[in-house]
Amino acid sequence: MIVHTLLDSSHLAGNLLGDPSERDLFVYLPSGYEESDRRYPTAYLLQAYGTTAAEMITPATDGERWRPPLEDVLDPVFGRMGVPPMIVVVPDGWSRWGCGQWVDSPVTGNFEQYLVKDVVNFVDANHRTIPDARSRGVFGFSSGGFGAWNVASRNPNVFAAMAVLSADSFLDMTHKFMLYKYLDSIWPEAPNGPVEGNVWSELVYDYSATYSPNPDRPPFYVDLPVAHPSGELIQEVWDRWLAFDPVVNVHDRLDNLRKLTGILLDAGSNDDYNLHWGHRLLSHYLNEAGIAHEHRENPGNHGGRAYERYQMALQWLSQVLERD
Amino acid sequence: MIVHTLLDSSHLAGNLLGDPSERDLFVYLPSGYEESDRRYPTAYLLQAYGTTAAEMITPATDGERWRPPLEDVLDPVFGRMGVPPMIVVVPDGWSRWGCGQWVDSPVTGNFEQYLVKDVVNFVDANHRTIPDARSRGVFGFSSGGFGAWNVASRNPNVFAAMAVLSADSFLDMTHKFMLYKYLDSIWPEAPNGPVEGNVWSELVYDYSATYSPNPDRPPFYVDLPVAHPSGELIQEVWDRWLAFDPVVNVHDRLDNLRKLTGILLDAGSNDDYNLHWGHRLLSHYLNEAGIAHEHRENPGNHGGRAYERYQMALQWLSQVLERD
Amino acid sequence: MIVHTLLDSSHLAGNLLGDPSERDLFVYLPSGYEESDRRYPTAYLLQAYGTTAAEMITPATDGERWRPPLEDVLDPVFGRMGVPPMIVVVPDGWSRWGCGQWVDSPVTGNFEQYLVKDVVNFVDANHRTIPDARSRGVFGFSSGGFGAWNVASRNPNVFAAMAVLSADSFLDMTHKFMLYKYLDSIWPEAPNGPVEGNVWSELVYDYSATYSPNPDRPPFYVDLPVAHPSGELIQEVWDRWLAFDPVVNVHDRLDNLRKLTGILLDAGSNDDYNLHWGHRLLSHYLNEAGIAHEHRENPGNHGGRAYERYQMALQWLSQVLERD
Amino acid sequence: MIVHTLLDSSHLAGNLLGDPSERDLFVYLPSGYEESDRRYPTAYLLQAYGTTAAEMITPATDGERWRPPLEDVLDPVFGRMGVPPMIVVVPDGWSRWGCGQWVDSPVTGNFEQYLVKDVVNFVDANHRTIPDARSRGVFGFSSGGFGAWNVASRNPNVFAAMAVLSADSFLDMTHKFMLYKYLDSIWPEAPNGPVEGNVWSELVYDYSATYSPNPDRPPFYVDLPVAHPSGELIQEVWDRWLAFDPVVNVHDRLDNLRKLTGILLDAGSNDDYNLHWGHRLLSHYLNEAGIAHEHRENPGNHGGRAYERYQMALQWLSQVLERD
Repeated sequence: MIVHTLLDSSHLAGNLLGDPSERDLFVYLPSGYEESDRRYPTAYLLQAYGTTAAEMITPATDGERWRPPLEDVLDPVFGRMGVPPMIVVVPDGWSRWGCGQWVDSPVTGNFEQYLVKDVVNFVDANHRTIPDARSRGVFGFSSGGFGAWNVASRNPNVFAAMAVLSADSFLDMTHKFMLYKYLDSIWPEAPNGPVEGNVWSELVYDYSATYSPNPDRPPFYVDLPVAHPSGELIQEVWDRWLAFDPVVNVHDRLDNLRKLTGILLDAGSNDDYNLHWGHRLLSHYLNEAGIAHEHRENPGNHGGRAYERYQMALQWLSQVLERD
Repeated sequence: MIVHTLLDSSHLAGNLLGDPSERDLFVYLPSGYEESDRRYPTAYLLQAYGTTAAEMITPATDGERWRPPLEDVLDPVFGRMGVPPMIVVVPDGWSRWGCGQWVDSPVTGNFEQYLVKDVVNFVDANHRTIPDARSRGVFGFSSGGFGAWNVASRNPNVFAAMAVLSADSFLDMTHKFMLYKYLDSIWPEAPNGPVEGNVWSELVYDYSATYSPNPDRPPFYVDLPVAHPSGELIQEVWDRWLAFDPVVNVHDRLDNLRKLTGILLDAGSNDDYNLHWGHRLLSHYLNEAGIAHEHRENPGNHGGRAYERYQMALQWLSQVLERD
Repeated sequence: MIVHTLLDSSHLAGNLLGDPSERDLFVYLPSGYEESDRRYPTAYLLQAYGTTAAEMITPATDGERWRPPLEDVLDPVFGRMGVPPMIVVVPDGWSRWGCGQWVDSPVTGNFEQYLVKDVVNFVDANHRTIPDARSRGVFGFSSGGFGAWNVASRNPNVFAAMAVLSADSFLDMTHKFMLYKYLDSIWPEAPNGPVEGNVWSELVYDYSATYSPNPDRPPFYVDLPVAHPSGELIQEVWDRWLAFDPVVNVHDRLDNLRKLTGILLDAGSNDDYNLHWGHRLLSHYLNEAGIAHEHRENPGNHGGRAYERYQMALQWLSQVLERD
Repeated sequence: MIVHTLLDSSHLAGNLLGDPSERDLFVYLPSGYEESDRRYPTAYLLQAYGTTAAEMITPATDGERWRPPLEDVLDPVFGRMGVPPMIVVVPDGWSRWGCGQWVDSPVTGNFEQYLVKDVVNFVDANHRTIPDARSRGVFGFSSGGFGAWNVASRNPNVFAAMAVLSADSFLDMTHKFMLYKYLDSIWPEAPNGPVEGNVWSELVYDYSATYSPNPDRPPFYVDLPVAHPSGELIQEVWDRWLAFDPVVNVHDRLDNLRKLTGILLDAGSNDDYNLHWGHRLLSHYLNEAGIAHEHRENPGNHGGRAYERYQMALQWLSQVLERD
């Protein structure tokens, strides 16, 4: 059963893009929830770029390829796969430029605070969770995996475990070219905000709004890390992006990471954006720091096995989160 | 719950390819089956080219894209979608060259007889089906959709309804080029049987073994419809292929088709092999003959939405098959 | 040196598309022409679909890939390759729907008559050709190769040799699907003339205007060989297309073909439209009839080696055409 | 006319790969050379990665797409295009791992010294060049454009002009991912030298042999800039690569660049490797330094218009090189 609520967040209020502060919140209650009074571990599922919580629950059906409703992905976890029941929470991370990236930004909104405060408090107050970090995990794919890393590595007192799936990482190798694809896509015009239907423009403005926001620069409130028309990389701005890169900030968050009871890194070894290399590098740094974690790879590309990985991540989370 | 049995078929015995006559048989019993003594309508799901019943139940997980276990596709039909319970039968149609195409052939085996006699009798004898054509439907995708057409349009006393999904049809437009792709793939060598890993060779020999078998021509026992090296189409053999083409044999089966209580044609309007045109033509001929049927299209290509279409087909079958 | 003239043709006048009857005519005179008074064999180069004589001489330079001016292709033939000098004529075969296909049609114009009468007479009258069929050849690529077949196999008294390069042929296998791609491209709308930028629409209307014209059916004056929306092939119209197919009409033109002093068939063995199979079949039929010809293949696809094949065709023509 | 010689170079002798020190040298003499005793400006054409001087002169003809003999590209420059005659020199830059990159390396050989000393001296001694830097230019495409930059920006006393076509540049954005594609291609094996047919392996070893050679590390004598299996970038080695990057070393070569009488940067604005951005950045830095240059773009991708760009580069060089 999936319970739908609307949750208004003070941490999203006042974002400079004018996106709504009231958001969908979906809570999946496992089979048997109604008939019992027990409390459950809780897993927070963070969306990827370009979608909404509502679309995860009930995908659009107008494409060449079918995507199952989330319920059809979660039910087998606790049925066929025999995973002990958990509550699964799907908060909304949508931004008009694609995704709040689950970080705090004056431009897109403080998605980290929204999640770790508003959402968690609401869920704990309204559902029979075990309201303790040790029974609370977070997971996501792509930007959602990036978000899982961000919130857990900064808030180990809220989330004791994270499953990081095909996460944005190693930006210096994987994302830099996107700046130039964007400039190409509008050339010879100068950057002037996201262009409807131009995914490069949306990606670059979305990342800039979340990683290098600049409230003093209307109307888009961002610093772009590339100069026009020279194409020179603006290192100072790029460094602000890199500060969000897991393979960069891992070094400063070792104490927090040590507090986690579970870290799972999982990626397809044919990731279209080479993100599996970010994962390998993260695993390498965690090993260097002596931090226990699981590092898995699957034969997938970027996205083709996302649903299966959600199932796998929940199976893994059920093993590392505490039950009563 | 899925029950697995091995079923030996006299109609498959003695096939010239030497494929086993004993085959997997999977029977999906809906939730509640065990607790009741009622009887259920039954839907027979015929596989597509290149796979097995066992792989449909539990797909291999080594590809770039995930495919769900069949249980995860069927459970939501009778759960989330609220379709009244049915029994779903998955017989094995595998041939060493790809697929028995659900037709009778001395080379690959008499798959039509195997299905309409051995499988149906076994299922009716061992499970609480409603053992009547009016409560028995057949469906499948691609070669499985072709098979559904073949067995129902020839055996309306066994199957009263068929859901034909993206079926092989209009071969003159959609399949003729495959003969030449095959010759190209081995050029300048002469045809000499299927070549491992060469899908064109396997397709051409598989179709020939099922549509134009020739027991007097060892070692492959087929007549190919194309001459080597001239590339001339051998019309006499090609006509034997066309005799199996739904848009051709529809005209001779109108009496049978009239007996059916349900005909569903469904295809993606972006089918990679243009099979949606075979469906449109079939629908046109059925309309000309005044035979009621459903003709649906979805925005998919060939295969990308197969699981969803299985769900849709079951929903449709549940409405046309009789219940007690 | 290339001499440019404008030639008005009574055979193009009055075409129902309203295309101009005055056309560019380019005549390439070999090095040494000016200094001598000798007469030369002549080769007529027929364009492919979608271009003009002017664009062959000086291709547009706005694409991702460069195409050389025709002069840079012809000069090396008579220089580096050492081929004895010939005159090369480039008449204009453009139609607003793509190409006159070098056949006679009341809709697009009588391109065959225009070529074999107006162009040949003009060239013979104005340049030092050897004005005899035995010194006159025709060649072309794709639709131009189809045109070479059409005009030489019907007018052996005008052209004694033809070099047929990657010609449209075996339409039943290679072109039938285009009708359906066209319908798909406008679905669910009904056919209503060529659509700017929709190549399927232009191809289908162009072929219909040349192969199945119908002056009594304004505004497009064609019979389409496919019904809308059923998708049924209209066999009577399709047969009119097939009458132009070299692998079909070869059987009726054997007497003419026997009169030719040279027939070259050349195609890439990776032709994207499988046209090499039409060539193989043509060669097979010519062999059956005991008609001498050259049948060559190269490792190219459709078009990637067209310039080289022009050079090769001229080299071959120089060997079969008579010189003084 | 193209004159072929074999030239033995002391600067290539002793290279650790054991490649021959004797190389093909082709000298294109313009029409009229034989009949005059005048001296000509000279343009040196440097090959791209993965080919040889001999293959430039006479390309292999077994591919899907035809490539013209170099003579057919050069003749029209001095004929149809009316460019005053020049001598064009094609030295051999082949290395067994793809290309000597026209830099000095103990592993692949000292290609810069070989060019600016051996080749130039030989050509000046044996052909009627104007033996002066002001009449000597260098040009090339891709790795050949990179080579043109390298030799002219370091040897303005030898080459007064360079035409840099789609050159390797801005490696930090354009080439870094190749290291990871290489690791992926052999994963989970560790790097163990170039693998026949694996272009990523050959590229990475070739660049390492030329940019980060290490004679003390047999058997491959290179430092790779990426660690296995962690995937960590080895910054110290990567910096050695960057030292060869035009957008990096431009800053240290301004005095030399100022001495040049001509600098042409030309790239396709759809370059598959985004190399047009390196060119834009170079142009930006040259402008900042007040160094005159031409910066051109064409609508091509990487390679599709290379022959046309050779023609254009020669036309440009003829304008900036001094004639008697």
